[in-house]
Amino acid sequence: MEWMLVTGLLAALWVGVDVVLLGSPYLFQIMYSQFLSVVGFILTYNLIPPFAEKLKARGLFGKDLNKPGKDVPVPEALGIIPGTVFLVCVILSQFMFSSDAVKLLEYNAGLLSICFMILLGFVDDVIDLAWRYKLMLPTFASLPLLIAYRGSTSILIPKWIASLMSIPHLINLGYFYHLYMGLLAIFCTNSINILAGVNGLEVGQSVVITVATILHNLLELFWSVEDGTADDNPFASMHLFSLLISFPFLACSLGLLCHNWYPSRVFVGDTFTYFAGMFFAVAGILGHFNKTLLLLFIPQLLNTILSLPQLLGVIPCPRHRIPRCNPNTGLLEPTPNLTLLNFTLRLFGPMTEKRLVQILLLFQVLCCAGGLVIRHYSSLMFFFV
Amino acid sequence: MEWMLVTGLLAALWVGVDVVLLGSPYLFQIMYSQFLSVVGFILTYNLIPPFAEKLKARGLFGKDLNKPGKDVPVPEALGIIPGTVFLVCVILSQFMFSSDAVKLLEYNAGLLSICFMILLGFVDDVIDLAWRYKLMLPTFASLPLLIAYRGSTSILIPKWIASLMSIPHLINLGYFYHLYMGLLAIFCTNSINILAGVNGLEVGQSVVITVATILHNLLELFWSVEDGTADDNPFASMHLFSLLISFPFLACSLGLLCHNWYPSRVFVGDTFTYFAGMFFAVAGILGHFNKTLLLLFIPQLLNTILSLPQLLGVIPCPRHRIPRCNPNTGLLEPTPNLTLLNFTLRLFGPMTEKRLVQILLLFQVLCCAGGLVIRHYSSLMFFFV
Repeated sequence: MEWMLVTGLLAALWVGVDVVLLGSPYLFQIMYSQFLSVVGFILTYNLIPPFAEKLKARGLFGKDLNKPGKDVPVPEALGIIPGTVFLVCVILSQFMFSSDAVKLLEYNAGLLSICFMILLGFVDDVIDLAWRYKLMLPTFASLPLLIAYRGSTSILIPKWIASLMSIPHLINLGYFYHLYMGLLAIFCTNSINILAGVNGLEVGQSVVITVATILHNLLELFWSVEDGTADDNPFASMHLFSLLISFPFLACSLGLLCHNWYPSRVFVGDTFTYFAGMFFAVAGILGHFNKTLLLLFIPQLLNTILSLPQLLGVIPCPRHRIPRCNPNTGLLEPTPNLTLLNFTLRLFGPMTEKRLVQILLLFQVLCCAGGLVIRHYSSLMFFFV
Repeated sequence: MEWMLVTGLLAALWVGVDVVLLGSPYLFQIMYSQFLSVVGFILTYNLIPPFAEKLKARGLFGKDLNKPGKDVPVPEALGIIPGTVFLVCVILSQFMFSSDAVKLLEYNAGLLSICFMILLGFVDDVIDLAWRYKLMLPTFASLPLLIAYRGSTSILIPKWIASLMSIPHLINLGYFYHLYMGLLAIFCTNSINILAGVNGLEVGQSVVITVATILHNLLELFWSVEDGTADDNPFASMHLFSLLISFPFLACSLGLLCHNWYPSRVFVGDTFTYFAGMFFAVAGILGHFNKTLLLLFIPQLLNTILSLPQLLGVIPCPRHRIPRCNPNTGLLEPTPNLTLLNFTLRLFGPMTEKRLVQILLLFQVLCCAGGLVIRHYSSLMFFFV
């Protein structure tokens, strides 16, 4: 039932994009990307079971801590499959831009950052990197992206704040803007990684955010077509870029979600969370909607803020911070750890794992919907009143 | 003794490059790359022992088949360390070109191809990919490189052949040239991978070829400085690119060789051979010396031709094709498998493993030296007489 709903909505989105952009100069590129994405979904879905067996045989498996009594080993690090398939899909998209060096540069810089993060994630899954590497290496991985960034380094300040503080409306941050983008990449990678611990949550939240990303870029692109500014509008081509990499990401993530949804037959590993985090950073930075991206990351932002006392070591931080499963009732109960999962369980009381994931994903949907409304209907008010 | 000789020669090369280019506009960039490379060597050398322990603990180790009686497990896949350090070094080199989109494109496309191959190599070491993936995935990995290639697609035919066959002296191959480059990338990756099986051979041959690559690019660059054409000579900037990525590769490989030389404390894995192969393809293609590169790959070419009957399945091909160690004499003896190693043992008789590696590397040095002489002193004759 729920799957039919999700499938229907996604199919509507898939076709809807084409309908909205009917007659626009982008339609062919979008449809080519969608075609590759469908192939990517089929590949991801079918490659996961055999590779899961191989990874398990190599000792890459975990215990599902929320299923007491069931000591079945679940294969780990399956994010490597959607990651690799995504890279192949997007590399094949490059043919559309082979004559445009600046466009190709963005593609390659973005893909390099993503590929480097997949590599680091997989190495982390295999040999458990120390924390200093986990924080340092994403910084290097995001550098190609930051160096290739060719856009504005200015931010708009709301007029009333600007006049209140007697500062200009438009501030050029220069290298501080690059610093901000680097921090954004580190935030995206790690915030998805720590909003985790119940079946399907990592991939589920990524799918919801990607759908919101697609809708946002579609709206921007649609308006630039309506305005007739599409051809010489640099922002239009940026949103197109973002759309063209979002479809393969959505498709490959869905292929993984089919196996990772409750009850999980495979785990996604740091490979997937790093991959997803860097994907959003690339889409947001090269698509020039990095402030909107933060609006779509509100649950991750809340969870990170909640977790800060433990992450910074003010309060002791155990290896796992997930809820506890009561073996008598089969329901999840909160632990004292500071996470959005435990907070939700405190708010609504003990519940099944599946219900907890559903509630968290519903919250993600509401936040993303709210974020898009704020962005598209209130931003004018916010910035110009 | 031998180590002092090698160290002395390398130090001479290191400083020699700076001396030759003294006063040229490239000196600063070269020295920055050399500085990063020294840091890269130190990092690689020091990170390998702790990571070797971690990989071994995860079950990533092999038996050293040429040391009968010694059943010590040797950690595998250590190519991941020089690979990752190399990526970080070259990403940090990008700052020098941050304003030049076309240059950055080449950097990022080349790095993406290399990074993708490191990822595939490491996955292969962890879960042993099937042959169809091993052949297919390097093709995708080399695509960014081919799409970003902005150079000529013509080849020069020696005049006497051209006049004999009544064809033009300069032939534009168009897309066939791209096909040729793709095949070159696949050849480089796989030919290093199969010229292997005795301690230190994979890294040793890569080090020798890299030194030849550096000398070749240095000569080209030196002549363009002498001619006074350096500033507006597109070839000069291509050879500079090649030099700037060759130093970090040489340094990181040397850091690995220190641990991989006979008797090996670590094995390099497919991670290193794929990494090295794609590095040479990138350096050769974006440095525009891909025909010269083939001259430096003569031992690999011979070994591949020798191996063809077994690779194609005309003659049965066992899992390992390495020589056999006679436990009584401790010497390696040839097996019936068609490889350069067995051929060498047939030619010179049984010998120790260390001596076999030395002979093969000496052969590599002679081939590279000969290749450079042919390229730099005979090419004019060959093409214009």
